[in-house]
Amino acid sequence: MSAAKTAITPTRQQDFPEWYQQVIKAADLAENSETRGCMVIKPWGYGIWELIQQQLDRRFKATGHQNAYFPLLIPLSYLEKEAEHAEGFATECAVVTHHRLEAVKDEETGKTKMIPTGELAEPYVIRPTSETIIGAAFARWVQSYRDLPLLINQWANVMRWEMRPRLFLRTAEFLWQEGHTAHETKDEAIAETRMIHRLYEEFLRDHLAIPIVPGEKTENERFPGADMTLTVEAMVQDCKAIQAGTSHYLGQNFSKAQNISFAGRDGAQSFAETTSWGVSTRLIGTLIMAHSDDDGLVLPPRVATQQVIIIPVTPKEDTKEAVLAACHALADTLCGTKSYHGDPIRAHVDSRDLQGGQKKWEWVKKGAPIRIEIGPRDIESRKVCLQRRDQQPTEKAFMDKEEFIQSVPDILQQIHDNLLSRALEFRNANIFACNDMGEFDKHWEKENPGWLATPWSGTAAEEDVLSKQHKITIRCLPIEDAGLPEELLAAVGQDCILTGKARNSVALWGRSY
Amino acid sequence: MSAAKTAITPTRQQDFPEWYQQVIKAADLAENSETRGCMVIKPWGYGIWELIQQQLDRRFKATGHQNAYFPLLIPLSYLEKEAEHAEGFATECAVVTHHRLEAVKDEETGKTKMIPTGELAEPYVIRPTSETIIGAAFARWVQSYRDLPLLINQWANVMRWEMRPRLFLRTAEFLWQEGHTAHETKDEAIAETRMIHRLYEEFLRDHLAIPIVPGEKTENERFPGADMTLTVEAMVQDCKAIQAGTSHYLGQNFSKAQNISFAGRDGAQSFAETTSWGVSTRLIGTLIMAHSDDDGLVLPPRVATQQVIIIPVTPKEDTKEAVLAACHALADTLCGTKSYHGDPIRAHVDSRDLQGGQKKWEWVKKGAPIRIEIGPRDIESRKVCLQRRDQQPTEKAFMDKEEFIQSVPDILQQIHDNLLSRALEFRNANIFACNDMGEFDKHWEKENPGWLATPWSGTAAEEDVLSKQHKITIRCLPIEDAGLPEELLAAVGQDCILTGKARNSVALWGRSY
Repeated sequence: MSAAKTAITPTRQQDFPEWYQQVIKAADLAENSETRGCMVIKPWGYGIWELIQQQLDRRFKATGHQNAYFPLLIPLSYLEKEAEHAEGFATECAVVTHHRLEAVKDEETGKTKMIPTGELAEPYVIRPTSETIIGAAFARWVQSYRDLPLLINQWANVMRWEMRPRLFLRTAEFLWQEGHTAHETKDEAIAETRMIHRLYEEFLRDHLAIPIVPGEKTENERFPGADMTLTVEAMVQDCKAIQAGTSHYLGQNFSKAQNISFAGRDGAQSFAETTSWGVSTRLIGTLIMAHSDDDGLVLPPRVATQQVIIIPVTPKEDTKEAVLAACHALADTLCGTKSYHGDPIRAHVDSRDLQGGQKKWEWVKKGAPIRIEIGPRDIESRKVCLQRRDQQPTEKAFMDKEEFIQSVPDILQQIHDNLLSRALEFRNANIFACNDMGEFDKHWEKENPGWLATPWSGTAAEEDVLSKQHKITIRCLPIEDAGLPEELLAAVGQDCILTGKARNSVALWGRSY
Repeated sequence: MSAAKTAITPTRQQDFPEWYQQVIKAADLAENSETRGCMVIKPWGYGIWELIQQQLDRRFKATGHQNAYFPLLIPLSYLEKEAEHAEGFATECAVVTHHRLEAVKDEETGKTKMIPTGELAEPYVIRPTSETIIGAAFARWVQSYRDLPLLINQWANVMRWEMRPRLFLRTAEFLWQEGHTAHETKDEAIAETRMIHRLYEEFLRDHLAIPIVPGEKTENERFPGADMTLTVEAMVQDCKAIQAGTSHYLGQNFSKAQNISFAGRDGAQSFAETTSWGVSTRLIGTLIMAHSDDDGLVLPPRVATQQVIIIPVTPKEDTKEAVLAACHALADTLCGTKSYHGDPIRAHVDSRDLQGGQKKWEWVKKGAPIRIEIGPRDIESRKVCLQRRDQQPTEKAFMDKEEFIQSVPDILQQIHDNLLSRALEFRNANIFACNDMGEFDKHWEKENPGWLATPWSGTAAEEDVLSKQHKITIRCLPIEDAGLPEELLAAVGQDCILTGKARNSVALWGRSY
């Protein structure tokens, strides 16, 4: 079978990691910078982040959260207070030690060099996450049970010195939101942790068209300092897992370390129960790996910077003006009168002085959900030529223009539904039940082995041995209603695959980014 | 005359700087943190920033700019390339020198301490501004004149190690937007610089109700590395100036240092002409000092997190439910059906279990533009009791509820107009023409001396002498149509106040934050 020519080289099958880099490059989403491990997010990529931000932010506000902003720099002494937390982040902290530069002349070259000066008495780390600095504020703000719950979110940049950076998925600096809440009781804090977990699941499904498995992390994989970490795990097209978001129940670990205490209803002093939760620009990496194809990026419609690209086809000078006018009129109608999930349709006329084919392929690679071509004949016939990014780039449909205008929201929803069902089918086809250690060990020799669901009651140490042996982890212990196929769950036995003891839970194993 | 009791102590007249701190505290806008010079922006303050962001962002996009994101950390070698720029920021740079922490046991105390380790071969500075790192990206992106203009904006945090921090006005870390553009010709770059200057002027006037003087900075006050810096200068209630935003024409200074060059229409290689421009969380400090009074914050309606506060008056249990229902119905009607400058009205019912008086004063101090009280009798009479923040807190008006609903946008606009005209009147009353050096020297001995407009053609050195002598600066050389009173301009002579030579321009002198 001879391979069809694709816009991206290599294809997913030839070299998935390199395909990923090339998709990002071809769609002009981001690039590496000279700052080690840090990326530049270019406009087409940043537009996706802006939409993710707006849409998530609405959900956070609708559930009672308020935004605030806390310092970038954390005094070292704050980190020292919660030992497990400090240890978890110690190997990847950028440390600020000086607050001035001095210009000195290099004797050899004669050039001016800047050297750090003004050493700080206490160094700071650039926040890798903000539990400690936000906790210090919470300790000031919380005095009485009347001050609770405290429901705060921050949109910010954070920094973790990554040794093997990968655009969007693992960068030294990334953008994220981090929710931090304090509650009167354990039940309320756990309810918050679970509510956000569900919110992330819905956001990934309904906005990014990514079906995730919601579950709990084992002790080995928990956030440093948490009593419980809930995760949403996505499977991408090489069958690896991506932890797309986490929600942590922190118990009183941080409130004790930082003295977030309050006078309760009975007058007695108690420590607050806290949570934290976040998603990041990693979501962009996840959606690229989940949906894109060998022709480039495929954007879920709700987070597409432009949803409808209108390309004027102007073979002759004398009809050019009329065609351009028709294109702009269509864009204005769509943007001004039609909406999708409450937001105005985003339509753009590509009137650049370039060849039609060049434009088309650019938008294919950039993943715009709908492309429309309008030429002189289409004006007369009141038709548009429609191409959908979730279908083959060569597939074209002619549609009555009025009908198209009316049905744009439906078409976008069809594209969304198509991406979601494709991804769900793929995922379900690549999770396998396994009850036998021999099979288990052999499974990981395969290429793109997918995930295994096993009965599990092993210890953290036993889990660790298997993880190291096969370069896998327990991605999560799926929650009760995780949405996994019933046949799969029915095929998982009752006795732990390793120990033979009655299982505590089903464990989902896999490789991950 | 005995002073009326005010909600803020001290009053503006008693101690303006301390009044400012107390307004921020009483309105719960922000607080100092344990990170030196860095603030925590609390929800009521961050809400203002979110509105500023949204509204400015729309204007940037409407003028063809796109958002992107660039690394937080700048390699030292980048700074070294543009000497003037590096020198300008050298004394206030936070420097990252290590990328790990190591836990060591303190022999004496037995406690674990974290110390920096993993020294970097090349240190980084936390961006004090991003010309150099964005310039490096522009050098990659710009190849041909077809890639120009490049119109980019970034919303980000920046850091300048301030020795005398003041909440919002001067903090080590602050939030801002920085626009960076590259153009084919000098004319285009200057047109961009001026267009943004005008955009800032309009934004301050139409969104923050602050009348500014638009003008050019003298060489002494220019941005390090710029050929021209345009500024919008606000006068606040102690008659000091605040530089509220700047727009810089950078010529080819940065493009030469960073090799942002392109093949022109004639095929020859040229350096791009670049600009940069920004406003920051300083705008919040400016609006506090411009509008607030001795009872606390006064918010311009467009950036008020809540525009209408509805306070249920529930003297008796048996009518409480009906009153609360009426309040929520009113809020829903306002939020759902009425808008102000295209955004839905933001209305909030304060249903907390607190005394009415306590609630009222809280919202006075928080600066909510409109307060509404609804009690049992008002339901029957279909009236609301209206109080405006720009009037005395004791002033009440009863209004037919339907009429109120219809006129909310108008009332908000009246409040805006009132704040703007007050501020304009105050400013114009505190700028004085001065053509005589004796008068000039004496003027600065006054308390809250306001600004002086003088004829000027002195040198940078001469300006510097006067600046140091009186702790003043030339705030700007106002542009042609700066909106200053004609009588004022007519009173400024034609010969330089210092040298007696024909003036080059009018100079506006003042103290500043």
